[in-house]
Amino acid sequence: MDLLIPIKRALISVSDKTGVIELAQSLADAGCEIISTGGTQRKLEEAGITTTEISKVTGNPEAFGGRMKTISFNIESALLFDREKDAEEAAALNIESIDLVVCNLYPFQKVLEQGANFETLIENIDIGGPTMIRAAAKNFKYVATVTQPSDYNELMAQLKSNKGALTYDFRKKLMCKAFNHTADYDALIATTMDQEIGIHSLRLGFEEGTDLRYGENSHQSARFYKQKGAANSLYDLNVLHGKALSFNNILDINGAIEAIKEATRPACSVIKHSNPCGLCEGDHQAELLQLAWAGDPISAFGSIIAFNQTVTLETVQFFQLDNEDRSKRKFVEVVIAPDFTPEALAYLQQHKNLRIIEFNAARLVDGVDYRYMNGSLLVQDTDTVLHNKLDVVTEKTVDMAVEQPLIEFGLRAIKTIKSNSIAIVRFKNGYAQLLGMGAGQPNRLVATKLSIEKCRENLRNEYTGAAEDFEAYVAQELANAWLISDAFFPFADNVELAAAAGVRKIVQPGGSIRDKSVVNTCNELGVSMVFTGIRHFKH
Amino acid sequence: MDLLIPIKRALISVSDKTGVIELAQSLADAGCEIISTGGTQRKLEEAGITTTEISKVTGNPEAFGGRMKTISFNIESALLFDREKDAEEAAALNIESIDLVVCNLYPFQKVLEQGANFETLIENIDIGGPTMIRAAAKNFKYVATVTQPSDYNELMAQLKSNKGALTYDFRKKLMCKAFNHTADYDALIATTMDQEIGIHSLRLGFEEGTDLRYGENSHQSARFYKQKGAANSLYDLNVLHGKALSFNNILDINGAIEAIKEATRPACSVIKHSNPCGLCEGDHQAELLQLAWAGDPISAFGSIIAFNQTVTLETVQFFQLDNEDRSKRKFVEVVIAPDFTPEALAYLQQHKNLRIIEFNAARLVDGVDYRYMNGSLLVQDTDTVLHNKLDVVTEKTVDMAVEQPLIEFGLRAIKTIKSNSIAIVRFKNGYAQLLGMGAGQPNRLVATKLSIEKCRENLRNEYTGAAEDFEAYVAQELANAWLISDAFFPFADNVELAAAAGVRKIVQPGGSIRDKSVVNTCNELGVSMVFTGIRHFKH
Repeated sequence: MDLLIPIKRALISVSDKTGVIELAQSLADAGCEIISTGGTQRKLEEAGITTTEISKVTGNPEAFGGRMKTISFNIESALLFDREKDAEEAAALNIESIDLVVCNLYPFQKVLEQGANFETLIENIDIGGPTMIRAAAKNFKYVATVTQPSDYNELMAQLKSNKGALTYDFRKKLMCKAFNHTADYDALIATTMDQEIGIHSLRLGFEEGTDLRYGENSHQSARFYKQKGAANSLYDLNVLHGKALSFNNILDINGAIEAIKEATRPACSVIKHSNPCGLCEGDHQAELLQLAWAGDPISAFGSIIAFNQTVTLETVQFFQLDNEDRSKRKFVEVVIAPDFTPEALAYLQQHKNLRIIEFNAARLVDGVDYRYMNGSLLVQDTDTVLHNKLDVVTEKTVDMAVEQPLIEFGLRAIKTIKSNSIAIVRFKNGYAQLLGMGAGQPNRLVATKLSIEKCRENLRNEYTGAAEDFEAYVAQELANAWLISDAFFPFADNVELAAAAGVRKIVQPGGSIRDKSVVNTCNELGVSMVFTGIRHFKH
Repeated sequence: MDLLIPIKRALISVSDKTGVIELAQSLADAGCEIISTGGTQRKLEEAGITTTEISKVTGNPEAFGGRMKTISFNIESALLFDREKDAEEAAALNIESIDLVVCNLYPFQKVLEQGANFETLIENIDIGGPTMIRAAAKNFKYVATVTQPSDYNELMAQLKSNKGALTYDFRKKLMCKAFNHTADYDALIATTMDQEIGIHSLRLGFEEGTDLRYGENSHQSARFYKQKGAANSLYDLNVLHGKALSFNNILDINGAIEAIKEATRPACSVIKHSNPCGLCEGDHQAELLQLAWAGDPISAFGSIIAFNQTVTLETVQFFQLDNEDRSKRKFVEVVIAPDFTPEALAYLQQHKNLRIIEFNAARLVDGVDYRYMNGSLLVQDTDTVLHNKLDVVTEKTVDMAVEQPLIEFGLRAIKTIKSNSIAIVRFKNGYAQLLGMGAGQPNRLVATKLSIEKCRENLRNEYTGAAEDFEAYVAQELANAWLISDAFFPFADNVELAAAAGVRKIVQPGGSIRDKSVVNTCNELGVSMVFTGIRHFKH
């Protein structure tokens, strides 16, 4: 449908006056009558634009300190009557069409954010504005409703190209925006007023929904949305190359950037099934990738990899995408970075399916975590505290000046691994590396076992010495590593297991009723232990 | 504040006419003038209640097929003017207060659910109603706004006890409900209209937010909400006894009921860190709990346990809460069931802290799964398909009439275990039991290892024969069990590992490019394999 409606009469009443003069001027130039109110009218008149005072149309005075300006039989009739069916009735009632409403609302959100008191909030609840907007939107078949200055340009362009008229499709699109505008407005008022009487309600809006091929599995349909008003959204990732992102890709991309977002140095994460199986922080990017990959070189195949720095060619050559021996090529699903050098990008693009994603993990801000389950919602602050102390609780002491950076790296790692989790981290030539981890276990002892087995596997991979000296190498590397536990040890068995494997340094929150026995075991086994005071469960 | 406002003049205009006669009668009896519109007025007049026609107050005719009825300078002024500041101005303009608005809106939702066409939807967008409601709500200091028939009783009771007046607190509460009503209304209109132009937007509302002591960890604050309009919400669980629920309790309760909600027989799940570490379906509840517990007797301590039948004393005596030897008592965090016998409840209540929860897992309906991440949202259908085939792909065949119930039990289990996951299930005296599982692993082979190790541990626990015959017992039990994989095997190594441990029957979705090699390995090793066609990733 392309039912053009000429805009002969417009009502302009805006709280946000951005661009309103230019818009009104272009309407006036096209011969459109402009009805206006209060501050808007003054601004337009000052700019030399002739306007009709709203009270001339309503037939009523502005009343009650401005609470009554537009609401009237005449204005809403002029917006609502059916230009075909009701034409005669309108003529008989002396109602003349209004073809365009340009209106945005009293700045409730702004005064709320400024910490206004309750009376001011109430005064900033707009009544006339939503009425006009909703009336005009309902009658979009004949009337256009503009609620956002960002739509003025398209409006002016349409008026120009259609000789002062607007298309049906444009009016329909504006109608949708209008109801979104009033829905957003009342959503904020409703939750704010609820809070005033001690009721906790929550309204979340999402937009730009895009269909995904399927969900976690191919028999589930799925969609990806951006949160309304989110300043920094994962949705804003930029796909530079490759197949469309899948549901599981997006979950893993989030895991990958979460794992590096708090890194204090260049960092690289390798994610499989939401868990980081590789993580490294250090100076040189190519080295970083290799050390992160070495955290679990089997799982790294088909993984999601994120960086927090511009990715260079030297780094990605590690994937050997151009190796003629196909078995040498390292296939990953997704590579994410804030930027890529042109050479790195060209190199990665050799792989047709590889998703290359531009996203800066540092953009993510601490926020809120929502968990939806069966018609209910759990809401919590995100986990942003690494530790509230680093207390050495054992006889064997720790040089914190040396060890703190590695401990904090380990805490950043454990924070993003699913519970129960154990991570073993080490410094290798100045790089902080996740050497092995155990994730998602009902039993913490199994997580500890998994982390140790993974370390041994990885040490075996890097070991170049004589076979008979391998255990000495393991002992040396594990003695210098830190074992990090996401939650306290309920018994000393984890310490015994770790110490038997060669671990000599352990970090845990503390807080168990058996802390004393755990620390005693450490003392007996020559293990240092640090309490952080902060648990990092993640489910 | 208790500023009573006498209700001398009310405007009643309702789409849902439930209870409106009784309400109007009680207002009329109290000497209140009733202004009314259209269908509402006819209904009241038929009931013998005297009303004032709205057009007498507006000074305008009802016009444009009912599009204009209430909107007018007179009505909205009567609602909006400040009874103190604006009293003189109102008198000069002949505006007489309206003290109460009873209004609910054109049934947009109802006609939408009935599949109405676009024109009908548009006609069912109420303009006058939201204007009155919002005007009255804004001026709640003087005006009461009732938008829901469920509030009529309290309204009538207040009028009676306050001699025809309403309190400030009641008006304020009604104001909040009013803005929630218009917010809900425009939210539905906005998303519906967006859909009409091919835009996917989503608005979710949550209410009844209750503060939790803290979130996943004690440094995170948290709240629990009910989804607006949810017919079956996890929020509706009923805490019969025990400490307040924690954030992690609620996560695990959801996991526990998810694990049994599709059970075709009596069932019991044992959950730790969101994963079922024990699961059993069968006839006798006491036996069920013991077999579920035996799936991981270490992790079961401090677990969350759910049943899908009324819990009896015989069942819960397993916990030995009254054993004088405290070390024999089995401590769990939460027990969930649709019901408890009085004896079972009394027995469980011996433990002061134990949370006893009444909730029927069968109440949960298939729905939608939301995953919020950093300002974005993934939405998908829940995973409701167990398999789309049960194809035996190996030379060694399967008597499906005998094995299908156990395979399906295994698929129900794997569906709720975090990926990568492997479950080993068996029939034990007619009970389907999760004998061991591996969860949350980046590498599938590790999940297989974990599941086998857990089986061996559990078989060791139940074994009563001679030490030298234990391996024969393992071989016998694993040969009769099914190993279930949530996703396909990329290589034959998992099959080799499982077969070496004694597994002889494997279920997987199939679909790998190396399926043929996997099946060949099965044939070589005398293993039966079934393809289901349906993957069950869960992250």
